[in-house]
Amino acid sequence: MKLKNEQLRQRILISATELIIKDGIEGTSTVKVARKIKMSQSNIYSYFKNRHELLIAVFKYQQQKLIANLAPLLNSQLDPISQIESLINGVIQFGTQNFDTIRVIIIFRNQPSLRTTLPTINEDPFFIKLFELIKNYQDQGIVKSINAEFLVEGAFSIINNYLLANTTGELSFNKLSTDEVVSLVKDLILR
Amino acid sequence: MKLKNEQLRQRILISATELIIKDGIEGTSTVKVARKIKMSQSNIYSYFKNRHELLIAVFKYQQQKLIANLAPLLNSQLDPISQIESLINGVIQFGTQNFDTIRVIIIFRNQPSLRTTLPTINEDPFFIKLFELIKNYQDQGIVKSINAEFLVEGAFSIINNYLLANTTGELSFNKLSTDEVVSLVKDLILR
Repeated sequence: MKLKNEQLRQRILISATELIIKDGIEGTSTVKVARKIKMSQSNIYSYFKNRHELLIAVFKYQQQKLIANLAPLLNSQLDPISQIESLINGVIQFGTQNFDTIRVIIIFRNQPSLRTTLPTINEDPFFIKLFELIKNYQDQGIVKSINAEFLVEGAFSIINNYLLANTTGELSFNKLSTDEVVSLVKDLILR
Repeated sequence: MKLKNEQLRQRILISATELIIKDGIEGTSTVKVARKIKMSQSNIYSYFKNRHELLIAVFKYQQQKLIANLAPLLNSQLDPISQIESLINGVIQFGTQNFDTIRVIIIFRNQPSLRTTLPTINEDPFFIKLFELIKNYQDQGIVKSINAEFLVEGAFSIINNYLLANTTGELSFNKLSTDEVVSLVKDLILR
């Protein structure tokens, strides 16, 4: 794909992201995306076969944005606790700057029918590495030995709740520090 | 309000709930609700002043359904840990039978602009009692002394993740027992 086309593809994905956040997944159609970026609907179909493929591409695009920020934090030099803290802090820092990305991931994962069509952990090198690491920490008795995907999703939910409460400026939530959130997530996942 | 009218009001709320789950909040309008239950839009406006008031009424209706199931579990005879376990189990049991209620609450609370217009804790006797109890447990050093609303929302998110994974039949999640979820939520909120 040429650079120009890749830029157009990205414009479609960003515009679809904005629509999903504004109108929800069900309220997002290729017609609306086309109208938003003044492009013909058929042109969108030259990038994405259908609406569902566009939606999945939006999810992947946003997830990759998150992964690109977290991947450099995987550091085999770190002891387990420091590694875990670094990743939790990484998601909080990233989410503070890119809350739309976190929101879109949560919106997709909270939709039962879409959830099962999302890419799995084994389709991405970062997640493969991350879950190998968690398995390793579980074998060492550091992380709880229950379903690792469930633990990671739980951590992600807590961080999302924190970012959400900060976004809306709920006063009582503002009294919560990043360190307290990191500590809560650690209590959730560590043994 | 006469019984007949109260039944009609409920039909509107249930139909709006179904629409919110299918089409999202933004995809739910008074026109669509009216069409769904073959009623005139003006008739809906005789029950709810406007779309926003209808939405808030849906949230309250579903939250009251949850509260009606949890309120009998508040039992001053129980020791703190048993009380907390009983409440966590109560939400899981209720959510297993009424996942739509949990989903609607989550959908509303994940929407930053709506979130700030939802009823607060101080508007409901159950929540007033619940948060007094938590404050009491915090003073006793049993529950973590960080923002209680954040703790409760975190617990609710973990339970939602569990119900969601069970709904979609994600195989790996099914290996997770209710007891393990209760134990995780306890690790999150207890000191």
